[in-house]
Amino acid sequence: MYDGIVQDLIDEFGRLPGIGPKSAQRIAFHILQTPSFDVSRLAQLLSELRERVRFCEICGNVSEQTQCSICRDPRRDRTFICVVEDAKDVSAIERTREFRGLYHVLGGSISPMAGIGPDDLRITQLMQRLADGTVVEVILATNPNLEGEATATYLSRLLRTLEISVTRLASGLPVGGDLEYADEVTLGRAFEGRRAV
Amino acid sequence: MYDGIVQDLIDEFGRLPGIGPKSAQRIAFHILQTPSFDVSRLAQLLSELRERVRFCEICGNVSEQTQCSICRDPRRDRTFICVVEDAKDVSAIERTREFRGLYHVLGGSISPMAGIGPDDLRITQLMQRLADGTVVEVILATNPNLEGEATATYLSRLLRTLEISVTRLASGLPVGGDLEYADEVTLGRAFEGRRAV
Repeated sequence: MYDGIVQDLIDEFGRLPGIGPKSAQRIAFHILQTPSFDVSRLAQLLSELRERVRFCEICGNVSEQTQCSICRDPRRDRTFICVVEDAKDVSAIERTREFRGLYHVLGGSISPMAGIGPDDLRITQLMQRLADGTVVEVILATNPNLEGEATATYLSRLLRTLEISVTRLASGLPVGGDLEYADEVTLGRAFEGRRAV
Repeated sequence: MYDGIVQDLIDEFGRLPGIGPKSAQRIAFHILQTPSFDVSRLAQLLSELRERVRFCEICGNVSEQTQCSICRDPRRDRTFICVVEDAKDVSAIERTREFRGLYHVLGGSISPMAGIGPDDLRITQLMQRLADGTVVEVILATNPNLEGEATATYLSRLLRTLEISVTRLASGLPVGGDLEYADEVTLGRAFEGRRAV
């Protein structure tokens, strides 16, 4: 235990995800003892974050404007929409540089355990975006876990009524991984989704 | 990559020790998406930290006053001084509740590799504290690594001229550890320091 503000700061850092008491202590002392660390900048960013960040009115991605940089970009292909659970997933997919369409952030996944149903997700907004017939393919990129699969299944049934092709990201062995260490479900999926070479 | 401030905040968090890009992203989104997290408090603590924290004029521990809470506490035994490298070590020893004396924070350890010599540590201040004859024992609690041992050896030679007993924390097997997994040096020390039962 430390006097006053040092302990207060350690406690606050300890509330953040993935930071235990030891890391929090290390961070607080780093800030205290490293003159080159720009603590006022970090403090300012934190205090402005929630004011400045809004969510894109079209796709729900994080943005500092009413529409995010992807939705505003005229070079993006407006005939594809990739549906993801979270804004972090948009960033992960963007890093692959494989996809040049638009996104739709659901804001979570269907999870009866956590009390999250379809009405808690941005599904109505998705249906509105699909209404004008511009989109030809919806790629369901929810997580390959129980909740993500349930959400994908729900959406695929909902979209069946529209003249749009609905696809799901492939499940299989992670690239660079070892077959020996793959779990049975993943290995099963890899067999199921095998392709001619 | 995100728009503006979200990415800026991720970058700033990523500069802190033990926080990689993924953790930084997770933290930024946690702050953004958790209304109950008091971001203004964290921002305020960060901006006040360096102004409010000083170092105790006696022992060098962190404090918000000219003297730290330990040095000010009249119940502490002023005949024992425990010498540590860093203020974090004071906190670690306090948690054991084994020691009721005072501390002296050196501010590092002798390390020719890092260009840190005895003059860069608070050794003169230690000698001044020992001058009035109150202290009967100095416990050298520098880290049990190369630099810490070198510092302890240097100090023990320096203190030899005074009428003060100088001790070093015991090295040996960590409690709860497995003998099988102990390294040779630690096991050797455990033999060397064996005690009659």
